[in-house]
Order: sequence, then structure tokens, then C-alpha cells
Amino acid sequence: MPAPLSRSDIDFLLYEWLEAERLTSRERFADHSRETFDSIMDVAAEMATEVFAPHNKKADQNPPHVAADGKVAMIDEVKLAVDEFAKAGLLASSFDESLGGVQLPMVVTRAAMAWFQAANPGSSSYSFLTMGNANLLLAHGTEEQIDTWVRPMLDGRFTGTMCLSEPDVGSSLADITTRAVPAGDGTYRISGNKMWISGGDHELTENIVHLVLAKAPGGGPGVKGISLYVVPKKQADGQANGVSLVSLNHKMGNRGTTNALLEFDGATGWLVGEEHRGLEYMFHMMNEARIGVGFLATSLGYAGYLASLEYAKTRTQGRDLTAKDPASAPVAIIEHPDVKRMLLAQKSYVEGALALGLYCSKLVDDAATAPADEAQRASLLLDVLTPIAKAWPSQWCLEANNLAIQVHGGYGYTTEFDVEQYYRDNRLNAIHEGTNGIQGLDLLGRKVVMKGGQGLAVLAQTVGDTVARAREAGGESAEYGTVLAAALQRLTDTTAALWKDRDPAVALANSSVYLEAAGHVVVAWIWLEQLLAAGESTGDLYDGKRAAARYFYRFELPKTGPQFDLLASLDRTTLDTDPAWL
Amino acid sequence: MPAPLSRSDIDFLLYEWLEAERLTSRERFADHSRETFDSIMDVAAEMATEVFAPHNKKADQNPPHVAADGKVAMIDEVKLAVDEFAKAGLLASSFDESLGGVQLPMVVTRAAMAWFQAANPGSSSYSFLTMGNANLLLAHGTEEQIDTWVRPMLDGRFTGTMCLSEPDVGSSLADITTRAVPAGDGTYRISGNKMWISGGDHELTENIVHLVLAKAPGGGPGVKGISLYVVPKKQADGQANGVSLVSLNHKMGNRGTTNALLEFDGATGWLVGEEHRGLEYMFHMMNEARIGVGFLATSLGYAGYLASLEYAKTRTQGRDLTAKDPASAPVAIIEHPDVKRMLLAQKSYVEGALALGLYCSKLVDDAATAPADEAQRASLLLDVLTPIAKAWPSQWCLEANNLAIQVHGGYGYTTEFDVEQYYRDNRLNAIHEGTNGIQGLDLLGRKVVMKGGQGLAVLAQTVGDTVARAREAGGESAEYGTVLAAALQRLTDTTAALWKDRDPAVALANSSVYLEAAGHVVVAWIWLEQLLAAGESTGDLYDGKRAAARYFYRFELPKTGPQFDLLASLDRTTLDTDPAWL
Repeated sequence: MPAPLSRSDIDFLLYEWLEAERLTSRERFADHSRETFDSIMDVAAEMATEVFAPHNKKADQNPPHVAADGKVAMIDEVKLAVDEFAKAGLLASSFDESLGGVQLPMVVTRAAMAWFQAANPGSSSYSFLTMGNANLLLAHGTEEQIDTWVRPMLDGRFTGTMCLSEPDVGSSLADITTRAVPAGDGTYRISGNKMWISGGDHELTENIVHLVLAKAPGGGPGVKGISLYVVPKKQADGQANGVSLVSLNHKMGNRGTTNALLEFDGATGWLVGEEHRGLEYMFHMMNEARIGVGFLATSLGYAGYLASLEYAKTRTQGRDLTAKDPASAPVAIIEHPDVKRMLLAQKSYVEGALALGLYCSKLVDDAATAPADEAQRASLLLDVLTPIAKAWPSQWCLEANNLAIQVHGGYGYTTEFDVEQYYRDNRLNAIHEGTNGIQGLDLLGRKVVMKGGQGLAVLAQTVGDTVARAREAGGESAEYGTVLAAALQRLTDTTAALWKDRDPAVALANSSVYLEAAGHVVVAWIWLEQLLAAGESTGDLYDGKRAAARYFYRFELPKTGPQFDLLASLDRTTLDTDPAWL
Repeated sequence: MPAPLSRSDIDFLLYEWLEAERLTSRERFADHSRETFDSIMDVAAEMATEVFAPHNKKADQNPPHVAADGKVAMIDEVKLAVDEFAKAGLLASSFDESLGGVQLPMVVTRAAMAWFQAANPGSSSYSFLTMGNANLLLAHGTEEQIDTWVRPMLDGRFTGTMCLSEPDVGSSLADITTRAVPAGDGTYRISGNKMWISGGDHELTENIVHLVLAKAPGGGPGVKGISLYVVPKKQADGQANGVSLVSLNHKMGNRGTTNALLEFDGATGWLVGEEHRGLEYMFHMMNEARIGVGFLATSLGYAGYLASLEYAKTRTQGRDLTAKDPASAPVAIIEHPDVKRMLLAQKSYVEGALALGLYCSKLVDDAATAPADEAQRASLLLDVLTPIAKAWPSQWCLEANNLAIQVHGGYGYTTEFDVEQYYRDNRLNAIHEGTNGIQGLDLLGRKVVMKGGQGLAVLAQTVGDTVARAREAGGESAEYGTVLAAALQRLTDTTAALWKDRDPAVALANSSVYLEAAGHVVVAWIWLEQLLAAGESTGDLYDGKRAAARYFYRFELPKTGPQFDLLASLDRTTLDTDPAWL
């Protein structure tokens, strides 16, 4: 099995492009250096490859199930992996030293964590869900809540979940019916059903810390009535806390992660932060989780790319079109242009997505630690890029997995190879943490128009800076810079045209198409950035970056032309179609 | 579970568009009428829905396996279904009356068979493979071979397979190593391994009739040395014939169909037709099989479309964008524009693909039974359309299944619903019977250039006739006619530009992109044909056809613009990429 990620690509992105070492001049990261960054990457790559990857297929073929005793049973390797991850201190990689963390920059942490996502999305999910939960409690919980829940989570004794959706609610959180009733002692009794809870039940740790959205009395209808509660599976004395497993969902992929329907029946909970601000807190976490989903999609795409690359180099079949002698030896299939096309496409998707994810992670670092002006700018840009960083990889790295199967031919469709599992696992990512449809509405309905359009303006300015550098660099970079500038202009013009009449029904009718077009423009920009970072450097790594950038500008970015045409026409096809016609 | 196909759409396509009743004026179909056509469709719809569909999921979850006795075991429902299909005489639907067939036109037969493909691709595959095998033996076998093998197959006592590929050969049949050695008594001893054999082993019938490609002595290297042999699993006395099961392939989907690696160890075989013409005979069957793959992809796409349509009509969630009151009742999700977009896209893909498949089937009828001129023209057009009829549905009806999952949200990713299985099942269709990469080479490397470009000329003329009728019809049809004429011109010009220097390496470098662009032009033409057939008729069916045609012309056909730009530039990105850069 080839490594599921490319260390040389990660090093290129972190050091030659994003100049991650410069972050060590900021106070929070002052104890760090290229050496400490490298060392966590070594640990992650090794543990992912040796502890997580080997049971990825086994976990898929033997998913968690409810055993005769009513408890969730799964293969032993999962707990060993989860425990080893915790023991290495990886749960607290980016957290404060005061919590036992190592204060690594997010851009380095995300790169390290991608190894685990690529190696085994199921077994690594429990730790990532826990980190997201801990991060939210650190931002909005009390000191006591942090001591009671966060410290045991970062020690690996507890895991955490997020409980948002409900059986008939889906993305429409305004309609949740879970209730929180004050018990009079400062706690609440939480009652209701929560659906799609990843890591919702298992026996991997002593306790599970659920963060639960529920409606408190007096909050009014809709999302305004929603508060956030911390609700453990077990009480402090180890007794059950009225949280029970109704059923596990059986899925096409991502089978290593338990996904549960839970019933809260008067469970004791504690309010997090202020009443009626639950959704606001949850969205703080949600943005982080969406970037995490983007990384998950990217990692699976990357693992599939490297697997199909390895296959294409070793599998011989057929001959060059110009070789007329049927007695000549067959060639490695990587010599066939159509196989090269499928590999170039995958490379442009997965390396583009990884670069975008790391860029966004660096923005998280900048928003938190850069000087005020730069921090504000980073925060705005991050807001705009988040729906793209979630949706784009979940669409195009799934397509990469589709191509990885195709490169393998019939073998790729069998469980003998890994790519069919990557494809099944990756299909989830366009759905969870806000479907891609929701991301389109978020991008076009909120992110590009909020604060008087500042978000889009910051994006345009940032891309404009890249274009200016590309023009200075000349050659292929300058050529693509001109193309990118035109695409960016179309994005800006189209956005204005869509909102000209301030009619959301018309503006948002084709928000999914807008999301796709904007995503391709953004990733084209990210590829131009990589091309500039490669500069005149020689070697396969840099030639590969140039070839993938070329592929993206010739085969991919032009796809946005018809999309912008459609959007600019304020097309009403979807609006005007009567459901009875379908 | 909703019906997996739409009878009203099939009736529209067969009678209002293709005027299938007119076929009854030809001698071969003289005993038929709209009534006999309707009656087979009734039988197919009912048997597919009541006998095949109910165990589709069960067969997926309990796929065939090798039992302790070394035999292939599967759930009992499969044999019941296979037997009932045979008992109803469906195996011989389109065959000669002299063989016990009913001489139905292929266009009617294919429509009827699509019900079974949509309801249960696994259980229906054994019968379809048998019909393909029988058809080949009828064309090239001796009277004795027909009596010995074809009659028992059409009676349902034997099933048939096609044994082409081998473990290290894939699509490169020139490299097969299976040998046929004359035994001196008119038979041959066949030895070698055959891979990816669908229906390759099972206990469903008394015997299995393998059609095997093998190299006979003196045939020279490459494909020229290949002959075709009929090799039964068992000898006439019921004894084994040296054909053994090495292993079953375990697949992501299409799990109901056994797919085997077989070893032929001196098995007795009989030559079919003449020596060294095996590949030519096999391609006769292959073209038919490719259209069958297109129908399979279409049927699965269609079943997913109808399932997600039903879900979207009944599932409530969220509110209209303009509804500000959070206390208002949620709406059915089909009211959301993005859900309508996903349903319209599916409708345009699956109804477009079904129409294309039926059009090609009608060409099969015309090639066999129309007056000579028309027959020749039909045959040429069929040659050009076959790679598209195989590849286009396998790409876009898979995308339809992707959207069907997305309409279901998280539920679509669970095994509680059917769409995840459709998606997994459908992924095979871009691979088998010639990968889509092979179809691209076939279309651009052979079909559009063969016989001095006559194939493309016939296509252009046929599309041109439609455009002329559309212009006469006026309105939306005329508008789309103009757009289609321009797209057709680009297809013709691009084909000429690609072959200008007669350099196959350059011409074929992006043959997959050519296949995609040509496919979209062809399906746009098929949609214009449907729009014209709908005419001024009123009602949801016709409004639906108009809405889907509109969707295809506004959202889909414009995608070909950048594809033709790329092709016309004779882009060398794939050619010039060194494998070491990947």
C-alpha cells in the first residue's frame, strides 16, 4: 500500500508556498521551529501508516454493530488506534500549553491530521470530533466545564460529539424539538431525539460528552430559541444519564464511524454560554468542522490518486498507438494519454484541494495571531472561502476517486483494491456538516454580500495581488494570470448581476452553480499561487506542479464560462418548473 | 417502493415519438400490433416489480459466495426469478418464431427488458447474458450448435456467458494466452484463465454455455490469431468438462451477478464459424452488449430519479426563502429550487438516455428489416451512436444516482433507502464491455472516420433533418434548433481539425473529451426530437418534457463549448506530461 499522502507535496505547500516557518515569529508559536513542525509530521505519517491504515478495510468490512448486551461493538484495532493517538498527545496539538497542548499553528496541525484522515477516516473520526467539541467548550464554556469535560477529552479518557439534527429536521435547525427544562439546581433536563450523531455511542472511552442543541423555555420560535448544553452519556458516578442509543445508521461508506440515533430522556445537561445563543456557538465550531470535511474529502482523494498512480506505473497493458507490432511488449498503462489525463485530473483536484485547505488553515492562524488589520482581513477571507473549502473537495476529490477506480479498470471495482472504499467513504462529504446545497446558499446568500460585500472584495484583492505577481513573473504564469483576472471579473460581475434586484428568489435560484463556478475560480487562483511558488525550480516535483496547473487552466477553469453565462442570464428554469412536471 | 421506470414515458417514446406501431407493416413484425407490444410491457412491468425488485437489496447484502462444497451459493429468490423469466418466454422475445420466439422488434424488447434491469440488475443479468450468447451463436453457429446450445438456453435450461478477458490482459485482447488445440475429432482442447466472467459459475441451470476467445495454432500474433469456441461447463453426460471456478470477484456493487475467474484445463470446445475470425464475431455481440450496458446504466439512473422524486414530494423540510415566519409549516423539499435543479438534471439525463437507447434499438430493427437504403443508413448511424449509447448513460446516469442520493440527504447515504445501491451498482457501467476510454477511442479513432467519414455524415444529416423540423415548428424548438445546429457544426469542424494531420497520437490524445462533447450534442438532439414529439400537447407529461429539454439546453449543452475549444486547440497537455511528474 503506497503512503496515503505525499510528504514532499506537504513540505512544498507549508514551506515553499505558505512560509509556515514565519509563524514562529508570533508569540503563540515562539517555541516552534521547522524542526518541531517536521517532527509532528513524522509522528503523524508514521502512526497513520502503521497503526491506522492497516485496519481501514477491516473496519469497513466489519462495521460497528449493536451487540447482544445492547452496547456498540467494533473491531479491537479501533480502540488501540484511538488510544495511541491520545497517548502521543496529538489531541491537544493546537491547544494552549496551559491545557497540556503544544500550540502548533493550525496549518501544521491540519497537515498532520490529514495523514490520519487519509489512512483511516473511521478510526480517526473519534479524535477529530473530540477536538472540535473541546474547541467549542474552550471558546464558550466555564472554567469548571473546561476542567470537567475538556481536560478528560484531551487526555483521551472521554470523547465528544455534536448533536444538532433530528429525524425530521435535516438542515432546518429552526425546527428542532428537543427541549431543555430547568431543573432548579442550575442544571437542565434534556429530552428529544438526535439523528446522525457521529461517534454518538461506543465503548472506546469512559464517557462521551455530547454538545446538544435544544430549545429552552421562552426562546420564541425558530433558531432564536436554541441554546447549547453539555450532556454526558454517564453521570459523574458512572451511572447512565438518560441518553440511550436508539439505533445505528448503516451506511454505504464511512462505515468505521458509528453514526447514531440517540434518545435524550430527561438527561442532565449544563448550559454552555448564554441562553438562546446556541446556534451562534455551534456555528463557530461548524466553520471549523466544514474545513475539516474539506480535508477529509481531500485526504481520501489524495489516497486514491496515489493508489491509482502506483497501479498505473506497475500495471502493463496495451501498446502505444503508434506501435504496430502486436508482438512488442505491452507498456505500463501510465504511458496511455487517457490514463495520464485521469491522473493529471486527480492531481489537479487533490493537490489543489489540499493547498486550499492549508491556505484556509493559515487564515485561521492569521485571524488568531496576526496584527489586527491582517487578522481582520484573514477572518473575512476565511468566511468567504469556508463554503468552498468544504464543498469543492467534496465534489472534485470524489471525482478524483471516481477516476482512481477507472484507472484500475475492473480491479478498481473490486474490494481487492482500496479505491472503491475511498469512493464510498468520500460520498458522505457532500452531505454532512451542511449539504453542498446549503454551502451554495451560504456563499451566495451570505458570504459574498455580508458587510457590504467586503468578503468578496477581500477575495478579489487577494487574487488580484497574485495576478500582479504572475504578470511580473512572465511566461506561463503571466498567461494564466490574465485568464484568472478575467474569471475573477466574471465572478464579481455575476455576483452584482444576481443581486441587482435584491430578490433572493432569483439571486439564489442557481446558487449551486454559483458555488461550483466560484470554487473553480478559487482553485485556479490556488494553482497559480503554487505555480509561482514553484518558480524556476527544477525537478519532478516542480514539473508536476506545472503540469497540474496547466491541466487546471486548460481543462478545468474554462468550465466556468457556461456557468457564468447561465447565472448572468438570471435563469429561471428551476424556479419556473412546476413540481407536477417532474 | 415506487415503480423503477415510467410507463407513460415509455409509451410516449415508443408511440408518440418513434412510432413503433409502424414497424408492424414490415414482414417480420406483421403478427404484432400495439396490443401485443402493450401486453409484453405489462408482463415485464409486473414481473419486474413483483418478482425481481423485492429481493434486489437482499441479493446485494447476501451476494453469491463459494460454499463449503465448492459450489456457488446464492439466495433462493434468484433462481425463482430466473426461472419465471424463462417460463414466461421472455428469453426469446425478439428471436425467430422457428426458435419459439415472438419476433418482437428490438425497440419493444429493450423497453420491456429495461424494467428488469431497473428492478434488479443482478437477478436479470443471467438471462440477458444468455440472450447475448444465443444471439451470437444464431449468427455464426451451425444448425447443430443451435440445436445443442441455443434451444436449451432459450428454454431456460442452460445459461450463457462471454469469456474474453484474462487476468493480465484487460482491454488488450491481442494479448490473450488461452490456447485451443485440435483434438483430431473436430473438437478442441481449450486451456487458459478467463477473468471478469459475469455469470461465470452458479447452480441456476443444468449447464453453462461459455463462448470463449482463444488462440488457435497458426493464427499469428495479435488479434488475428483469435478464434471463438463454444465450451460448456458440463459434457453431454453431465460430467465436468475441465472448466473450474478459481474465485469469485467481490465488488462494490452489482453484487447480485456472479463474476468469476475461470480456469479452462483442456476443456472440450467446438469452433464457432471460421478460424481466426473470433474477434470479429465477438464484436457483433459486443455492440449489442454495449447498448445493453447503456440500458442498464439508464435503468438504474431512472430508478434513482423516481425514488428521489417520490422522496422529494413527501419529505418536508425548511421553508420558502421568502417565508419569514419560522412558525409556518415546513414545505415539501421539492419546492426548493436546488432540489428542483437536482430532479430536473436527473430527468434530463435518464429520459435523454432512455430515448437514446430506444432510438438505437429502433436502428437495430431498421438495419435488419427496413428497405436496403434505409437499412444501410440505419446501420451506419448505429455504428456511430453505439459508443455514445454505452458511455453517455454510464457517465450521466451515474451522476443522476449521485444527485438522487443528494436529494435524500443523509438518508440517501444509508442502506435504509435504495439509492446508495443504485449508485454502487451503476459505477460498473463505465468499466465493463469496453471502458469509456475505449469507447472514446472507438468513436474518434474509428466510427467517425470509417468509410470516408460516412458515419459522421449520416449523423449530421439526421440531426440536420431534426433542426429543419424544429425551425418549422418555431418557438422554443426553433431556438434550440439553432443552438443545436451550431453545436453540430462544431462537432464536425472539430473532428476535421483533429484529423487534419492524420496523426493518431495528436488526434486521439483527448478522445475522452471528444466522447463527452459528442455525447452531449447527441443527447441535445434527442431532446429536441422529444420536444418536437411533445408538440403542443398539454398535460404534465408534455410540460415535463419541455422543462427537461429546457434544462438540457440551458444547463448541459453549453458545457460542450470549452470541450470543443480544448479539442480544436489540439491540446498536448496529456501527451507532453512525463509520467515521472505525476
